[in-house]
Amino acid sequence: MTEGRAAGRRGRGGGGAARRAARATAGIDCARFIERAIPNFELLNAEALEIIEHNAETVLEEIGVNFAENPAALARWRDAGADVQGERVRIPRGLARQLCATAPARFTQHARNPERNVEIGGKSLVLAPVYGPPFVRDLDGGRRYGTIEDFRRFVRLGYMSKWLHHSGGTVCEPTDVPVSKRHLDMLLAHMTLSDKPFMGSVTDPARARDSVEMCEILFGADFVAENTVMTSLININSPLTFDATMMGALEVYAQANQACIVSPFIVGGAMAPVSVAGTLTQVLAEVMAGVAYSQLVRPGAPVIFGAFVTSIDMNSGAPTFGTPEASQILYGAGQLARRLGLPFRSGGALCGAKLPDAQAAYETAHTLNAAMMGGVNFMLHSCGWLEGGLVASFEKFVMDADQLGALHKMAAGVATDPDAQAMDALREVGPGGHFLGCAHTQAHFRDAFWRSEVLDYKPFETWDEQGARDTAMLATERVQALLAQYEAPAMDPATREALEGFVARRKAELPDSAY
Amino acid sequence: MTEGRAAGRRGRGGGGAARRAARATAGIDCARFIERAIPNFELLNAEALEIIEHNAETVLEEIGVNFAENPAALARWRDAGADVQGERVRIPRGLARQLCATAPARFTQHARNPERNVEIGGKSLVLAPVYGPPFVRDLDGGRRYGTIEDFRRFVRLGYMSKWLHHSGGTVCEPTDVPVSKRHLDMLLAHMTLSDKPFMGSVTDPARARDSVEMCEILFGADFVAENTVMTSLININSPLTFDATMMGALEVYAQANQACIVSPFIVGGAMAPVSVAGTLTQVLAEVMAGVAYSQLVRPGAPVIFGAFVTSIDMNSGAPTFGTPEASQILYGAGQLARRLGLPFRSGGALCGAKLPDAQAAYETAHTLNAAMMGGVNFMLHSCGWLEGGLVASFEKFVMDADQLGALHKMAAGVATDPDAQAMDALREVGPGGHFLGCAHTQAHFRDAFWRSEVLDYKPFETWDEQGARDTAMLATERVQALLAQYEAPAMDPATREALEGFVARRKAELPDSAY
Repeated sequence: MTEGRAAGRRGRGGGGAARRAARATAGIDCARFIERAIPNFELLNAEALEIIEHNAETVLEEIGVNFAENPAALARWRDAGADVQGERVRIPRGLARQLCATAPARFTQHARNPERNVEIGGKSLVLAPVYGPPFVRDLDGGRRYGTIEDFRRFVRLGYMSKWLHHSGGTVCEPTDVPVSKRHLDMLLAHMTLSDKPFMGSVTDPARARDSVEMCEILFGADFVAENTVMTSLININSPLTFDATMMGALEVYAQANQACIVSPFIVGGAMAPVSVAGTLTQVLAEVMAGVAYSQLVRPGAPVIFGAFVTSIDMNSGAPTFGTPEASQILYGAGQLARRLGLPFRSGGALCGAKLPDAQAAYETAHTLNAAMMGGVNFMLHSCGWLEGGLVASFEKFVMDADQLGALHKMAAGVATDPDAQAMDALREVGPGGHFLGCAHTQAHFRDAFWRSEVLDYKPFETWDEQGARDTAMLATERVQALLAQYEAPAMDPATREALEGFVARRKAELPDSAY
Repeated sequence: MTEGRAAGRRGRGGGGAARRAARATAGIDCARFIERAIPNFELLNAEALEIIEHNAETVLEEIGVNFAENPAALARWRDAGADVQGERVRIPRGLARQLCATAPARFTQHARNPERNVEIGGKSLVLAPVYGPPFVRDLDGGRRYGTIEDFRRFVRLGYMSKWLHHSGGTVCEPTDVPVSKRHLDMLLAHMTLSDKPFMGSVTDPARARDSVEMCEILFGADFVAENTVMTSLININSPLTFDATMMGALEVYAQANQACIVSPFIVGGAMAPVSVAGTLTQVLAEVMAGVAYSQLVRPGAPVIFGAFVTSIDMNSGAPTFGTPEASQILYGAGQLARRLGLPFRSGGALCGAKLPDAQAAYETAHTLNAAMMGGVNFMLHSCGWLEGGLVASFEKFVMDADQLGALHKMAAGVATDPDAQAMDALREVGPGGHFLGCAHTQAHFRDAFWRSEVLDYKPFETWDEQGARDTAMLATERVQALLAQYEAPAMDPATREALEGFVARRKAELPDSAY
């Protein structure tokens, strides 16, 4: 939204937090976002980081970045002291980093249910689902184009997923709705079917404005003017290019003090050099330019250092996921983000597999582990991603979402208080004894260990008698069970009516179009 | 072997290394063991480690450990200054740690092909296959008891696996051979079908002696007297009990200067407290007692700090794998091992899954990641483990063995030399360009990224046309291909004859028995 548009809307603040709290349902069990009590893994040493930082400044100064079809952006850069030639912006050494300094190191994204607010930055980790697939897949229906009803099913599953903190954005493309109107149906689904935080539309500046206006209805305009209620995904057109559509959306959100992830989208070897150090150099240069630009639009606008980086398979040309190079880039990018003082987005349940099989799980687990240890603050694609992001899988959504529980436990660290030391148990049991019956075990066994709600822990014989089901089959049952249990979170009918009215009006105003 | 038995055998040293090198085949592509160029992940802070170390000493001092049915062990402990009451050995604070100091921080295990020698300790990581399952499984034959022919197929697969450095030990139980004679057939398979290093028998002291004697035939007695040619697995009967069988085998190996892994085998909540700190305390106490005992038998004998720890599912009572608690224990145990100055064994392709499906891969990948980052030096069960270790899976063997390639790449760290910085590529390509064709990419694309030889990287349509195979089906094909390509490494016919003669003689001497 522009400042003018914001002022033009009725204020809905005043007791908003209390009202939103009253609306909250107690029906679902949802974990708070993760605050890590464990160290980050620091893969690169200081010398390597300094080389990359020096080179990124060289890239910005000598090569520069393009801000395409965006005279306003070029003017902002010129005013800030950059050397602008045509669409090429060369940024003097140190300027981009200096501009980044006004971005907050940590910020709160508000949800309509304040219990679901998330904080992004520092040692937090916020988990959001898959974003962007045109296809969906499940065991019964196979692979097919996504629809708005698929979209709603994913939003419901996300709401029901205990370890998921965020409802996400384009959980799948609702291809049965014209592109020009999709954002309205998607936002309405996130706002009404869930009470977790969500993302705004970025495919056009006008759609970003619609996103802000719908938030003003949901939260009240005064509240939105003063608080961040959306985190949206701004991809950089790597290498080194910022296109007018994405920058237009970023401008809308930054002006409205809404958060953006500024994220290179890189398949290494194609959109970046084949080396990890070279790719990290490009990532840092791109993010610094994009974040600096957000701060030129509005100093202090919340923004996230994004790194979506994978590598190309040099045989097939396909992007690959869960590779060691991708993990190295994630670890390095996290270190660079922390040195820049910015929240960090990377990771996800990424895989190239076509099915929710062993390949999917190996690749996913490698990336989840790197994201956990590498200091990611906002993890998009935390569950449901399949086939290089072409497919949103219902089974994989619940499989991955279950795995996210393990990250919560890992992040909590190791307690060493006297009770956790368990010396009484060791004394009670002694050599050759058994701990199951001892007092310490009895006092703690319910919450001692993380437990999957999808995977199979039965004895072989029981498992065999019950149909010898693999993980995907068990996941199908969970999808069905969660959707059957689903109840929408309570919502003020007037708010719902206002949102539906907005959507109807905008749909009538907008042409049907496929772009 | 005892010293007397060693002296009784003909010397076969003298130019042995040269002779073994000449025997080596160049036919297979095998990676050198891993030397990490990256930091270890230090989960616990110094205060937590000190608490655990203090408590472990308290356990040894106040509670003590049992050395069951082993008067010689009790005498050794009494002589060393421990308080021995019945079978209970209470070790004064500091004594166990002091005794551990004579164990080497790093040692070489020799293979009959010197190119396959491994170093265990420091920042090394040596990968060995699954150990111990009574059952085997493949897609065609399903789940069934293992046979000696299954065993040989696994040894062949291990030999053919590029990323596997070690042939292992009981890759599956050959249940068609009497227990009393199995060790002979198993060792003969490792010695003749592979030229990678291997493990000795531990199920009876006499079988450990047979293992040493067969090594004297393979390597020469002089060579064995001076070098470590076996690393064998000595499990502690947790909690805090050292049984006579395992200690008898340890005594044989330590006296022969052969390496032992001294390894608590713990399902947390059953054989140890339900807390991570309590379990680590017990692990440290047990390992310190076992390693100290090995040094009482022979100061300087090579020994590894083992930690095989998982947690119990409190609903079903089943052991679970790949859990966050297991990873926390692995990280903590690695730190404790390094502070004790000992090589560290943990990790593996551990899972509770019944099939090589997504569950298997999630659980496996979590453990492989923890082992990589947690400083494991010797990873048993690196591939092929299924169903909580009850089953050795042919498909999972090649799936996991393929994943181990990623660990090699991860461990190599991130190069930052001028070529890796890729500034020329960034300058050549510039904003909006493409890196595939640039000079830097062309020079490096072959070795830039790790590439799976099992997983699917094809476009969806191609994959679909080719049968829409999942990972397990692709793995079946790889098993068949590797076995079809297999050629035994060259071996001196006289050595082979001597080994076969020894096996035949011992089989004739030994009764058939099932224990």
